[in-house]
Amino acid sequence: MATDATNGAAPAAHPVTFTALKPQVFVEASKVNDAVAFYKAAFGAEEVNRVSNPKRKADQELPLLLSAEIKLGSSTILISDLADDSTAPVKASGTGLVFCLETKEEDIEAAVEKAVKAGAVAESEVTEGDGACCGGRVGKVKDPYGIVWLICAPAKKCADVEA
Amino acid sequence: MATDATNGAAPAAHPVTFTALKPQVFVEASKVNDAVAFYKAAFGAEEVNRVSNPKRKADQELPLLLSAEIKLGSSTILISDLADDSTAPVKASGTGLVFCLETKEEDIEAAVEKAVKAGAVAESEVTEGDGACCGGRVGKVKDPYGIVWLICAPAKKCADVEA
Repeated sequence: MATDATNGAAPAAHPVTFTALKPQVFVEASKVNDAVAFYKAAFGAEEVNRVSNPKRKADQELPLLLSAEIKLGSSTILISDLADDSTAPVKASGTGLVFCLETKEEDIEAAVEKAVKAGAVAESEVTEGDGACCGGRVGKVKDPYGIVWLICAPAKKCADVEA
Repeated sequence: MATDATNGAAPAAHPVTFTALKPQVFVEASKVNDAVAFYKAAFGAEEVNRVSNPKRKADQELPLLLSAEIKLGSSTILISDLADDSTAPVKASGTGLVFCLETKEEDIEAAVEKAVKAGAVAESEVTEGDGACCGGRVGKVKDPYGIVWLICAPAKKCADVEA
């Protein structure tokens, strides 16, 4: 529970609540479509959203899939491409799996701060990142057990982002 | 979508539906209590269930926590000890994170079979395993992207299992 930042009795600025937790699986860009098809075939997952990659050029013939949202039981999983660019929340060397925690846009900073106070390490400033959670502002912390958490606002209507 | 097993038109034996998907995080046994406390403090997670380890002797003073179920947003996560015994679904060398997919007890085999037909690899027979999903029968497959899925029936009332 040790943290460098707890030198004082500053009360939590704001009560933070999370509306959804979505595991985000990162797969090599060229295999994201296959992965989505696999989860449909293997587990009957239902695709509820899909965002193409509007920025990077496809280095293959196939259009790059940035992120797909699939429903499995009562849960949602994001399947995203393991981009190697600077905005990617997970690098090729990462575990390939993070948790997206959704909260209100204006609560992202408070949520990151609370996690850091509890012992997590902020991995970056809150930034605009299109690799995670269908775009928007994203905070990123690593917990003491090695799990990376992205803290973000609920995805925008992803179809609007599609290029 | 390539699979060795799809040579024919054998219909799925049984339609399988999943009721819940629960990410299961494995943490060193001595740190599981800390991890649960951390997720409460960091993210306001709510503990909904806790199972002590009834079989192995604690090698420390603290009672070993086998698995705790915490609620975060509308999702549930299992925090479990990274046991090194043969029934553990994840070894110390594993990623520390698997997905538990809950289905009806009698549908576990059919669910495993469907996943394997779609390209997953069965990692073990369906076995009784107390390390996962609060006990009961568990099937285990690894998908083509490296993620391990445990397919199990919904947890028994975990308090009953507590030693």
